[in-house]
Amino acid sequence: MILLDGKHTAETIRQEMKQQIDALLREGRRAPKLGIVLVGHNPASETYVNNKMRACEQVGIEAVKIAYEDSVSEQELIDKVQELNDDASVDGFIVQLPLPSHIDESRITSAIDWRKDVDGLTPQNIGRTALGMPSLVSATPRGIRELLSRYGITTAGKHVVVIGRSNIVGKPMAMLLMQRPYLSLPNMSASALGDATVTVCHSKTQDLKKICLTADIIIVAAGCPKLLTADMVREGTTVIDVGINRVDGKLVGDVDFAAVAPKAAYISPVPGGVGPMTIVSLLQNTLQAYNEHTR
Amino acid sequence: MILLDGKHTAETIRQEMKQQIDALLREGRRAPKLGIVLVGHNPASETYVNNKMRACEQVGIEAVKIAYEDSVSEQELIDKVQELNDDASVDGFIVQLPLPSHIDESRITSAIDWRKDVDGLTPQNIGRTALGMPSLVSATPRGIRELLSRYGITTAGKHVVVIGRSNIVGKPMAMLLMQRPYLSLPNMSASALGDATVTVCHSKTQDLKKICLTADIIIVAAGCPKLLTADMVREGTTVIDVGINRVDGKLVGDVDFAAVAPKAAYISPVPGGVGPMTIVSLLQNTLQAYNEHTR
Repeated sequence: MILLDGKHTAETIRQEMKQQIDALLREGRRAPKLGIVLVGHNPASETYVNNKMRACEQVGIEAVKIAYEDSVSEQELIDKVQELNDDASVDGFIVQLPLPSHIDESRITSAIDWRKDVDGLTPQNIGRTALGMPSLVSATPRGIRELLSRYGITTAGKHVVVIGRSNIVGKPMAMLLMQRPYLSLPNMSASALGDATVTVCHSKTQDLKKICLTADIIIVAAGCPKLLTADMVREGTTVIDVGINRVDGKLVGDVDFAAVAPKAAYISPVPGGVGPMTIVSLLQNTLQAYNEHTR
Repeated sequence: MILLDGKHTAETIRQEMKQQIDALLREGRRAPKLGIVLVGHNPASETYVNNKMRACEQVGIEAVKIAYEDSVSEQELIDKVQELNDDASVDGFIVQLPLPSHIDESRITSAIDWRKDVDGLTPQNIGRTALGMPSLVSATPRGIRELLSRYGITTAGKHVVVIGRSNIVGKPMAMLLMQRPYLSLPNMSASALGDATVTVCHSKTQDLKKICLTADIIIVAAGCPKLLTADMVREGTTVIDVGINRVDGKLVGDVDFAAVAPKAAYISPVPGGVGPMTIVSLLQNTLQAYNEHTR
């Protein structure tokens, strides 16, 4: 069993990015700039935003936090999104989710110019990803693609089972996997992802176990601790755990790691697997947007 | 075995639409208006366009053909797309594909305002469909959804195998099928489609037969005559044939119909199955765009 070490891989990528950005600065170009809109004081959101700001700093991306109280109106946020869309000094920006319940998240997200949508959540980017057009890919699927690629794991002709059909993980992940392989995009290493036979499972799926037993690769993004158990996994399967659950104060994924790991060819741990790769994707998307925007 | 009679179903829907549009006219409202941009003299395209115009006429949609010679420049087409985007008297329009090789189809398609994109081909509409937002769904998947729905075939909890990963059929079809079920959209009958476990197969899939034998519903959109043979289908499977191939001057689908039909619970023929439903989808999308646009 080989551990898919997202923490280490993310660190390697950040070092590579720092070198690229240092080189840009030496050429006299400005640093890439990321805007982060944060509403309220959700502790998890504050932690995520701080982690993102620290990661930006490490690679040389200028990160600017724009903070609002919970009481902010939808229109104020829309106006800020428009301002960031129009601000030529900002290469990309994100609106940290979740938003307070009086704000329509999809209305905010849809207002973001897709060229600056470094979280890859707008209909335009999801659609462009699906159609195989150049796009800013949603952070988690992009991170998983990078993790697989760095470990030399190919997907062509393999059966990949994706558990979970969320808009930010399951659906764009499935689209990337079934795609004809990406040709090299600017600032993106040629990726072996694509050409997979993809099955998307979810809460309404019958006989999940039987389907999982036919998989070469299983990607679990269901938000359900120990959903994937050892009896559901063939010897030699690659297992990617996207779950982030807190059980008895401890962070755990969707996979019964101790029991599944001995059967897996490759497996990503939680924490230290997909999570760090997701933040790196945000940095990569920001650099990609910068390169498009300033070229 | 029950034949999924797309020709008859489409006729029924056109009659329903005619009544709806007649009612609009009696209220003193204008008729919905569809623009059809046709480039060159490809005989198949000319036939398709004529069929679409005739179908529009039948239901009371005003169809306007805008024809160009093969020599038209990309910029002229983009300018026309912009003009149609801005023309308040036009509810929706399509650019008949394929376009001559000197024109970048995706550049033309992407320029269409998604609210008028009644073919459902823009990244915005594909993305909105994937995200479960109100959208103009690509014509063929919309037609298949309607056909299944009219025959009372549900997809929740079923395993649907989609063969083919094209941007206009396989991918949006998969997105619709895996979706949480659509809530009723304006002018769309509540649909039972959604909540399916979906497997997307294609030319790189290994052991297609084995996968098909686990399916409750198989949708074949591969463009390959007799791809789906009787040994690949369990008794009681529903089979949707999206193929349009010409063999010895005869129109055939992707399914070995004579051999598969006796095993199928439901099966759509070619011709007379998905094809007529696809044209009806265009009419339905045009009426949906009209209702959004004029409300």
